[in-house]
Amino acid sequence: MYGYHGKYLRINLTEGTCKVENLDLELAKKWVGGRGLGTKFFVDEVDPLVDALSPENKLIAVTGPMTGTTAPTGGRYMVVTKSPLTGTIASSNSGGYWGAELKFAGYDMIIVEGKSDKPVYVMIEDEKVEIRDASHVWGKVTSDTTRTLMKEIPEKSRVMTIGPAGEKQSLMAAVMNEESRAAGRSGVGAVMGSKNLKAVTVRGTKKVAVANEEELKEVIKTCNTKIRENGVTGQGLPAYGTAVLVNIINENGAFPVNNFQSSQFPGAENISGELLAEKYLVKKDPCYRCPIACGRYTKVDDIEGGGPEYETIWAFGGDCGVDDMGAIIKANYWCNEMGLDTISTGTTIAAAMELNQKGLLKDENLGGVPLEFGSAEAIVEWTKKIGMREGLGDKMADGSYRLCDAFGVPELSMSVKKQELPAYDPRGIQGQGLSYATSNRGGCHVRGYMISPEILGLPEKLDRFALEDKAPWTKIFQDFTAFIDSSGLCLFTSFAMGAPDYAAMFNAIVGAELDGNGVLEAGERIYNLERVFNLAAGITPAEDTLPKRLLEDEIPEGPSKGLVNQLSKMLPEYYELRGWGTDGVPSKERKDQLGL
Amino acid sequence: MYGYHGKYLRINLTEGTCKVENLDLELAKKWVGGRGLGTKFFVDEVDPLVDALSPENKLIAVTGPMTGTTAPTGGRYMVVTKSPLTGTIASSNSGGYWGAELKFAGYDMIIVEGKSDKPVYVMIEDEKVEIRDASHVWGKVTSDTTRTLMKEIPEKSRVMTIGPAGEKQSLMAAVMNEESRAAGRSGVGAVMGSKNLKAVTVRGTKKVAVANEEELKEVIKTCNTKIRENGVTGQGLPAYGTAVLVNIINENGAFPVNNFQSSQFPGAENISGELLAEKYLVKKDPCYRCPIACGRYTKVDDIEGGGPEYETIWAFGGDCGVDDMGAIIKANYWCNEMGLDTISTGTTIAAAMELNQKGLLKDENLGGVPLEFGSAEAIVEWTKKIGMREGLGDKMADGSYRLCDAFGVPELSMSVKKQELPAYDPRGIQGQGLSYATSNRGGCHVRGYMISPEILGLPEKLDRFALEDKAPWTKIFQDFTAFIDSSGLCLFTSFAMGAPDYAAMFNAIVGAELDGNGVLEAGERIYNLERVFNLAAGITPAEDTLPKRLLEDEIPEGPSKGLVNQLSKMLPEYYELRGWGTDGVPSKERKDQLGL
Repeated sequence: MYGYHGKYLRINLTEGTCKVENLDLELAKKWVGGRGLGTKFFVDEVDPLVDALSPENKLIAVTGPMTGTTAPTGGRYMVVTKSPLTGTIASSNSGGYWGAELKFAGYDMIIVEGKSDKPVYVMIEDEKVEIRDASHVWGKVTSDTTRTLMKEIPEKSRVMTIGPAGEKQSLMAAVMNEESRAAGRSGVGAVMGSKNLKAVTVRGTKKVAVANEEELKEVIKTCNTKIRENGVTGQGLPAYGTAVLVNIINENGAFPVNNFQSSQFPGAENISGELLAEKYLVKKDPCYRCPIACGRYTKVDDIEGGGPEYETIWAFGGDCGVDDMGAIIKANYWCNEMGLDTISTGTTIAAAMELNQKGLLKDENLGGVPLEFGSAEAIVEWTKKIGMREGLGDKMADGSYRLCDAFGVPELSMSVKKQELPAYDPRGIQGQGLSYATSNRGGCHVRGYMISPEILGLPEKLDRFALEDKAPWTKIFQDFTAFIDSSGLCLFTSFAMGAPDYAAMFNAIVGAELDGNGVLEAGERIYNLERVFNLAAGITPAEDTLPKRLLEDEIPEGPSKGLVNQLSKMLPEYYELRGWGTDGVPSKERKDQLGL
Repeated sequence: MYGYHGKYLRINLTEGTCKVENLDLELAKKWVGGRGLGTKFFVDEVDPLVDALSPENKLIAVTGPMTGTTAPTGGRYMVVTKSPLTGTIASSNSGGYWGAELKFAGYDMIIVEGKSDKPVYVMIEDEKVEIRDASHVWGKVTSDTTRTLMKEIPEKSRVMTIGPAGEKQSLMAAVMNEESRAAGRSGVGAVMGSKNLKAVTVRGTKKVAVANEEELKEVIKTCNTKIRENGVTGQGLPAYGTAVLVNIINENGAFPVNNFQSSQFPGAENISGELLAEKYLVKKDPCYRCPIACGRYTKVDDIEGGGPEYETIWAFGGDCGVDDMGAIIKANYWCNEMGLDTISTGTTIAAAMELNQKGLLKDENLGGVPLEFGSAEAIVEWTKKIGMREGLGDKMADGSYRLCDAFGVPELSMSVKKQELPAYDPRGIQGQGLSYATSNRGGCHVRGYMISPEILGLPEKLDRFALEDKAPWTKIFQDFTAFIDSSGLCLFTSFAMGAPDYAAMFNAIVGAELDGNGVLEAGERIYNLERVFNLAAGITPAEDTLPKRLLEDEIPEGPSKGLVNQLSKMLPEYYELRGWGTDGVPSKERKDQLGL
């Protein structure tokens, strides 16, 4: 068996059992791996109406066939579960080393079921798998947990853990690995916390067999050249990390400010990737076998660690009106320590700042830390309060939608399907708005990154204000992304690599005969399976929308001035292209075509 | 004060005292920092005839003005002492993070004097400096020492340590930092061991002030562009690490095989940088603020860690006739764990293999592990034996010269001034031979890397077989290198940056007015100071030579077939250019000119 080991672990925390089960190779190939394979298992095993924080929900950590191989960036894994934040299927992707190490240990996937009656962690060392007491690390932050566990597990183990936020079931809680890598979005950390599962550590010494080593060598050579010669993956990301986008998006007037009240940030220079590299960078901090090495490791005063990424800088920076990079690094640090998604945390603080601006917050909730746009202190201190559910932080910990709804103004939550939007104003980038509205896990930029064609001009430049062609491009990007997320590679490779490149990589590793169209078809199959699950989970097509502000309030100034997102003019064409009729529901024909 | 903090630590282990002393800024600027400044202090304070392993020798760990700043690769430090291997001044350079962290703690340098009566380590946390008991880590390998100390020192501390080889005063012992970074050559680890000093840990939270931030920003931008656009620093090194050289040097027939018995290795493909990237690479492992990121982190079976570098791959590979990359990674790993210089260790094993080949070794010395060219087992097992001084490993631990001398054939040691030559056959690269012969610390490639012009064509291509112009190029490279080693930057920047770039960087950081000629003059001053010390230490100009094999035995085959190194035709011109007359001794005029 190539690419896959053909084995996965089923860990039942209620019963305290760990079983090795065999993976069906044909099933694996059909669903690729990662996001696709994890979702297929989840959908087959879990009732879509399950309470996401109940023992009946499952948590699947799943690698792709390229994970742990020699493919560039082949270190990704996905956490698949039902999201307690959105109620949709969740699949959050993370880099670093944990995913590759799971492959080295001989497993393609871990399915976690049930709930332990006390805090536990799972220790994996090749064939040895143990459920161990975790009461001594329960309550500890990510770094302390990692270091404490490292003293009692095999050397060179990789640690995936939740922080206090996951234990307290914050709906913005992330699953962390290697201290600063996050399967960040949709509250997957809360699901782990609900199971009393603190951590999964893994150490392995096996190799992943590939179908055709010589062929793979050639494919990797070709792809590495493309990655090296591409402006984004060969220059922008290596030099400045993802934060290279701050100036680019801001210059386009699509960098949301003060909870999307405006879209160009006067302080952008002070929070740019260039400034980060100039003043705070300690080193590049690459993931497993990554030739791009966009990861940063930064230091300010006595705080140092991984990140911050572009989205984080925007969420705590522009969206909170803060132009203090040192404070953003600290807020990012505390997100990692608490195990919080930085996008949802920063933007929920931004929403709270707008509640306060509108006079809706009472002082007694604030414990002396003003929730005011522009406050560097606020972003750091409220991150900690959210992580510990202190004061108003308790409400904020469940995200901006529930927070704003509690104050009677849900429309102030800049979210889709209750998940906070990331760092691109869809009024100035029309297709990205369609992508947000139709993302299968709610507000999200990595389910169809229309920024690539609409801003960066990759693979070709689209007019970001135009509406035509945005439906087909969005569909293609969503399907393409679903495949990449399933393969085990990083999405960033797609700036340089096309569908035929992934097909060639997949074929050399797995021993298949896929072409570029097959890549997109496999992605479409996955996308439709997610849609089917969401509909069964009660997420209606009416939720394929954007916050009212982005549909009705014109951007007040800058290069995107006067615009709103015209979703209603793109959505019908999108549904039609997807074979989802006029009502947004996959037709029987399309499902049959895709073999669902 | 800019670039320098103006403070250094004087630690007397005999008395158990730590003092902060002030650094004279004019002296610092004159001697730049790092190698230059450390040597100046050393020469002023220590008798050149001192026994290198006695308490009267000193060990200086010294940063440059660019260390810990935002300059690209600005994380280097030097260990300056009298070498027990060569009897010359030693200054071994290391990267990673320790050097930058020392600057963050507020110190430019540490001078270690005397000898403790029991094993100790020094813990530095900003102003707090303590000499602590190290008996619990004495005997431990590098990784275990680091992790054990990390439990008792401030979080995020950086650990410089010796392994068992340093404790046992192996003359090939390195000083290690961050587990796999080495101030590798000349036995500086033995000096540390002789003082009963196991480790120096450091954690700091200060910034290094620079004279002109805006100017520095511009200089860095210019230099980063040069680094990115240069074929070596922008492509070869990032993609394949230093091991990119294996195929290049081998294709030139200058890749020494079996202790320099031939110079082209049939198994080169199997130990190339390309293969390393293809099969064993886990990630790039960059040093502090390095845009090149040539550092590798590799894994084979249950062994993983930093490296191997090109020189290491050659020493254990081609020079021992071994084409097994997995074994080389393991040998490299054990060098790091034992705290051994990989070049001297690999080549000493190669020398022992030739002793054995010639029938000079008796079986009873070998403990069942055959010392045969091509033996993958031998390179791993003998590395461990050398580290622990077991069996013949006890003699081997003092380097190939003393080993071969003990068997009556010192000429089989491929060394200059008793330090083993690195991975370039000077018969096929004439200028590199002159550079070896005149290096102030004996056999060494980083004191004047003539490979750059003679093989790589940087800054321009020289005919590697020709003799003309090699003397002036060697002199310039040696002086240039002396400046870079002193500045705190990595030598690899010199593939892309010229003397005026370093001058601009120095000026922006320190607030000086140096030009490109000033850079070379400062380097020449340092080079001459080292020479003066060596002469006073009894190292005569007669030792400016090469092993007999390289002067007399023609390369038997390949692109460099039939050649020997014609040192005698280059040396007189070199002496003359240096102002060292005909006898190799710096003239009073030249010393006066240079302000010595």
